[in-house]
Amino acid sequence: MSGSSLGKNIKITTFGESHGPALGVVIDGFPAGMELQVEDIQKFLDRRKPGQSSITTQRKEADEVQILSGIFEGKTTGTPIMLVVNNTSQRSSDYSEIASYYRPGHADYTFDSKYRFRDYRGGGRSSGRETIGRVAAGSLCSKLLSQMGISVCAYTKSIGNIEIDYNKFDASNILKTQTAMPDADADALAVEYVNKCRMDQDSVGGVIEVVIKGVPAGIGDPVFDKLDACLAKAIMSIGAVKAVEIGDGIKVSIATGSQNNDAFEMVDNKLTKKTNHAGGILGGMSDGSDIILRAYIKPTPSISKDQQTVNKAGENITINIKGRHDPIIVPRAVVVVESMCAFTLLDAMISNMSARADRIIDFYK
Amino acid sequence: MSGSSLGKNIKITTFGESHGPALGVVIDGFPAGMELQVEDIQKFLDRRKPGQSSITTQRKEADEVQILSGIFEGKTTGTPIMLVVNNTSQRSSDYSEIASYYRPGHADYTFDSKYRFRDYRGGGRSSGRETIGRVAAGSLCSKLLSQMGISVCAYTKSIGNIEIDYNKFDASNILKTQTAMPDADADALAVEYVNKCRMDQDSVGGVIEVVIKGVPAGIGDPVFDKLDACLAKAIMSIGAVKAVEIGDGIKVSIATGSQNNDAFEMVDNKLTKKTNHAGGILGGMSDGSDIILRAYIKPTPSISKDQQTVNKAGENITINIKGRHDPIIVPRAVVVVESMCAFTLLDAMISNMSARADRIIDFYK
Amino acid sequence: MSGSSLGKNIKITTFGESHGPALGVVIDGFPAGMELQVEDIQKFLDRRKPGQSSITTQRKEADEVQILSGIFEGKTTGTPIMLVVNNTSQRSSDYSEIASYYRPGHADYTFDSKYRFRDYRGGGRSSGRETIGRVAAGSLCSKLLSQMGISVCAYTKSIGNIEIDYNKFDASNILKTQTAMPDADADALAVEYVNKCRMDQDSVGGVIEVVIKGVPAGIGDPVFDKLDACLAKAIMSIGAVKAVEIGDGIKVSIATGSQNNDAFEMVDNKLTKKTNHAGGILGGMSDGSDIILRAYIKPTPSISKDQQTVNKAGENITINIKGRHDPIIVPRAVVVVESMCAFTLLDAMISNMSARADRIIDFYK
Amino acid sequence: MSGSSLGKNIKITTFGESHGPALGVVIDGFPAGMELQVEDIQKFLDRRKPGQSSITTQRKEADEVQILSGIFEGKTTGTPIMLVVNNTSQRSSDYSEIASYYRPGHADYTFDSKYRFRDYRGGGRSSGRETIGRVAAGSLCSKLLSQMGISVCAYTKSIGNIEIDYNKFDASNILKTQTAMPDADADALAVEYVNKCRMDQDSVGGVIEVVIKGVPAGIGDPVFDKLDACLAKAIMSIGAVKAVEIGDGIKVSIATGSQNNDAFEMVDNKLTKKTNHAGGILGGMSDGSDIILRAYIKPTPSISKDQQTVNKAGENITINIKGRHDPIIVPRAVVVVESMCAFTLLDAMISNMSARADRIIDFYK
Repeated sequence: MSGSSLGKNIKITTFGESHGPALGVVIDGFPAGMELQVEDIQKFLDRRKPGQSSITTQRKEADEVQILSGIFEGKTTGTPIMLVVNNTSQRSSDYSEIASYYRPGHADYTFDSKYRFRDYRGGGRSSGRETIGRVAAGSLCSKLLSQMGISVCAYTKSIGNIEIDYNKFDASNILKTQTAMPDADADALAVEYVNKCRMDQDSVGGVIEVVIKGVPAGIGDPVFDKLDACLAKAIMSIGAVKAVEIGDGIKVSIATGSQNNDAFEMVDNKLTKKTNHAGGILGGMSDGSDIILRAYIKPTPSISKDQQTVNKAGENITINIKGRHDPIIVPRAVVVVESMCAFTLLDAMISNMSARADRIIDFYK
Repeated sequence: MSGSSLGKNIKITTFGESHGPALGVVIDGFPAGMELQVEDIQKFLDRRKPGQSSITTQRKEADEVQILSGIFEGKTTGTPIMLVVNNTSQRSSDYSEIASYYRPGHADYTFDSKYRFRDYRGGGRSSGRETIGRVAAGSLCSKLLSQMGISVCAYTKSIGNIEIDYNKFDASNILKTQTAMPDADADALAVEYVNKCRMDQDSVGGVIEVVIKGVPAGIGDPVFDKLDACLAKAIMSIGAVKAVEIGDGIKVSIATGSQNNDAFEMVDNKLTKKTNHAGGILGGMSDGSDIILRAYIKPTPSISKDQQTVNKAGENITINIKGRHDPIIVPRAVVVVESMCAFTLLDAMISNMSARADRIIDFYK
Repeated sequence: MSGSSLGKNIKITTFGESHGPALGVVIDGFPAGMELQVEDIQKFLDRRKPGQSSITTQRKEADEVQILSGIFEGKTTGTPIMLVVNNTSQRSSDYSEIASYYRPGHADYTFDSKYRFRDYRGGGRSSGRETIGRVAAGSLCSKLLSQMGISVCAYTKSIGNIEIDYNKFDASNILKTQTAMPDADADALAVEYVNKCRMDQDSVGGVIEVVIKGVPAGIGDPVFDKLDACLAKAIMSIGAVKAVEIGDGIKVSIATGSQNNDAFEMVDNKLTKKTNHAGGILGGMSDGSDIILRAYIKPTPSISKDQQTVNKAGENITINIKGRHDPIIVPRAVVVVESMCAFTLLDAMISNMSARADRIIDFYK
Repeated sequence: MSGSSLGKNIKITTFGESHGPALGVVIDGFPAGMELQVEDIQKFLDRRKPGQSSITTQRKEADEVQILSGIFEGKTTGTPIMLVVNNTSQRSSDYSEIASYYRPGHADYTFDSKYRFRDYRGGGRSSGRETIGRVAAGSLCSKLLSQMGISVCAYTKSIGNIEIDYNKFDASNILKTQTAMPDADADALAVEYVNKCRMDQDSVGGVIEVVIKGVPAGIGDPVFDKLDACLAKAIMSIGAVKAVEIGDGIKVSIATGSQNNDAFEMVDNKLTKKTNHAGGILGGMSDGSDIILRAYIKPTPSISKDQQTVNKAGENITINIKGRHDPIIVPRAVVVVESMCAFTLLDAMISNMSARADRIIDFYK
């Protein structure tokens, strides 16, 4: 069954395999009249492109996006926007061997179980390259959100046990550090840690945090399309994410109500919250505070250490995976998480436009 | 915009407010021919009914379910199944005061922000009573899954800092203990802890764990309708859940690849995994191992301690919330989480039936 | 698979069988703040209620609607609105015989083919009583549309070969005549014709026409959710409808372009069309003219004439169907067609609110 | 709002404008393992390609399809199939004039009303070229259906007043005649008629009929996703279709029940119907007979005769449209209608796989 579309008002549909001719996305329902240059999209794609950091894969991929539809005279037209990236650097011969066995931590076995066979080249559909379509879509959503004064900012919060220090938070570092950490000192430690693991033929995980500022209260549609529920799906659908939390997240389980509740108070005639344990979402709707969430990313499953597994003939074998793999995907995944948040939020904001009868009547006056 | 429906093949739509005439669910697309007695549903509802445990609310609600459609001669007919529970014990006068202010940790403010006004009686639509519909639907899904040898088992893993000891795990305790913990010793400690917090006019959170056994490999539809993504949405959509994790969850962020990867091996001519850090899901599809996930539940926001908040006139005020509130909702939420998992899994299993062309052809032979 | 929900922003889900405990609808996503009395809904339901006309069934059914959720203090709350009609007049014993065979023109055989068994009492789910939910939902949509100056008006255009004369069109007749024809003379002839057929133990079909006035241009979402496409689905989904046409409909096939094209012209500084062959829809979007469409309704399949058919034992048999059946369903179906149009249009108008980026930005200013 | 996706199990999303870089479709959820060559698709596309018939446009467009994803080693993989056709023959300069006014019968005005501006080149998104994506998708669906013994056959039933004679029906003519009529004599008359209209600078409409053979009983999901309702939407969504009918269609309105009901009878131990007024669909589900439906196509709105219209400055003007336009689109639309039927049917057949609990249980044994 179809599973590559997401969204209610704006619907994104990604397509493409790691080593097929191309990957991309169709963005259907994006509103008309927003100015858009190819650079707006490319800027986002470049953040996930390999070869941008010393601690990610040194593969070179141009990942140049082309706009095939939906833009006319520099503006979105309201019709489906088709964005495509041709695969150029793929060497399929690299992957002839892995066709025959199931890599631990990868989707090889589950794809084969489901479909009876798979495009094994570079992970095929389960490759991280699928996120190209997500990021391309996210770039448009972020642009429109920014025109409403809303910023979606994702960064690396931790790698292994190395966490950023919020006292050293400098947003300008996010795009500058090797790790996408906003704290340059933590970045240095993390790079060291990743390099050590890489020497050990191993890989590393981490945590990505997102802060969304400027969201009006009331966004999200209870009871199933709550904003947090939609965000959880959007983020958990990214390969390698194994946990999602909103606000205090897992810590709420050990808090008491008096600790966890955020008191409301009027400040300058504006309703605010004294604290933000809720992470900006109450009852599945934005509460006007910053929306804060975290994605927990597993270590890259492709490691060159020896691993035990099974081949398609049903034999126990030992493998070690060659190739130019990322020892950590967190830095490149930051923009993917950011994109999924931007898309999910914009879609929910559009849904919210019809929440009240008077506003529909006003709209058509 | 509509947000009270979930599911692709089977679609559940819940309705009802805490103090309206009734609550319930329409289950559309449930397959025909399954034997169903009202007791099958009531048994599930009784697990979330108030007054079953010394540490939950002592309100008495009958929560008796009626079947209004979709069942004939003791079997599902394939047409929409309408299940309704009449509200009987509601005393609306209790709630006249809270109409005027926004309770911290509740959805009062966000509902008002979105819709301009709200049914304030007992939380209205954002009440935990909404989950009646979820549990009623879950009971049917669990029954059909069990006929395929699949069990979905949820229980309380921890309350505050008190965790179960897996060495003392006894599944029969789940329905017997006050906390829905499978470990009777942990239960005793947890009851003591909850009672202490209640004395302090405070409330408590906890963690619910789910283990799903017997799921064939390949269930889930990449890239957005991955099984873990759909589970994350389904569970995060339950009020009070602030984090969801699959398998090792948040711990993957501090693991290395060699620690986190699960080696495959053949055992008795069957492909298995030596470990299950992945929690039974790889690449968004079930891998044949147990599916393991956790929901982190916040402490009940209704506490009788003094709290600061804001009223609708925009004044800072101090409140304390009266009423028979749960000092913890975890024990009653266990069956809700279980139900959402059962529903999500069954829906995904149906989606999977059309994954391969040869199976469609076979089906119609 | 689920098939009893319709709509994108507002989602209606009908439930119920002819002789089950109740029938109704959940309306999810209806905007908050519209005043609604139970009479608003009952007024619509009374138009489809049996026993209102000499030429329809003389069965008495109260069809009294109850509101179980979604309304508070006389206004919609934005949460799911649950409307239910209890079945009161059903005599299941009437139907014991038809359980054993397949009535020609009915869904008995197709229901059995699909689900292996069926609720055979009074047609079960395929009964015309299912439209109670549609009409209940339509009443709310019509009310909101009317607040935007939009009227949806359906009436009987023809019964058998007897057509209304537009020179005698008097809208006030629609609710007064036995046939729901706006032309009292045609009504008289049609009543005579229906009674003659009834004497012959036969039944009659007809055509329902809908005129929607006041719709702004641009409503509808190409290319699949065009307004005409959505209307076609909504109307064809009504039992007994076998054809749907927009504007000149079937006649366009014998016209030439110069005959069929509607010239635009400015009248009083307003863009208008000189003619309306298009029926108010161009390229799948409303063009500002009246939207005009027609539904072709088959004669009631339940007739008391002898008919040949097959029983469940696979034997050829002769039957004649007893019971108080409508010799024509057209008059009662008028409000059903009107309701489906009102719902479809309102849903499309909400979709249209996000067509332009500048309007989204304005909305959130 | 998004409107360019259709389908529940298989979801097609078309994209592209007449004069943009490319047009195409993403087919998501198509089952894995079906053999597919690019020729399978091209064969379908060639049937709608311009320049194939003396009575359609003489523009030359290669319309060569490329597969960008979802196929591996000659088989579908279960992942999204991306099919694209590059636009090669577009001369945008042809269209500079029409940017300034609204062509009668076209979507220029409605697109501008909705989105405030449009890609005016060649109709942009509302061009018939959009159907390239539909036909490409249809080719895959037809192929899979044929492997289940199901044939979907569309042809021209009439052009203007010239109808085929069923006694002269020769299916092999459908692909051979200029009109796609199966009756060579009618074809000759129709060609003459079209040419006469073209000489008059006018255009012509017609009727396309579809016969689907081999469909098992029970396909379709009441009450909104009935097979006829879904077919009606799919076909009405094709530009230029103004009416859809099933079986006897509009004629049912003048029939009596005894004429219109199809008697069931056992023939060779198989339940059949003596007649097929219902067009193979009862209660919204296939009844095992041939499914028969018709689409009524309006004359091409682009004619070179003088026409009155309005320009964007709000002035009444007279235009005549230059260019190589089809005097009739019916012959080229035949494969579009066929494709939409094949897609809709296959999607409904997949939905039907989960209608019965026992079959789900069997599937997973």
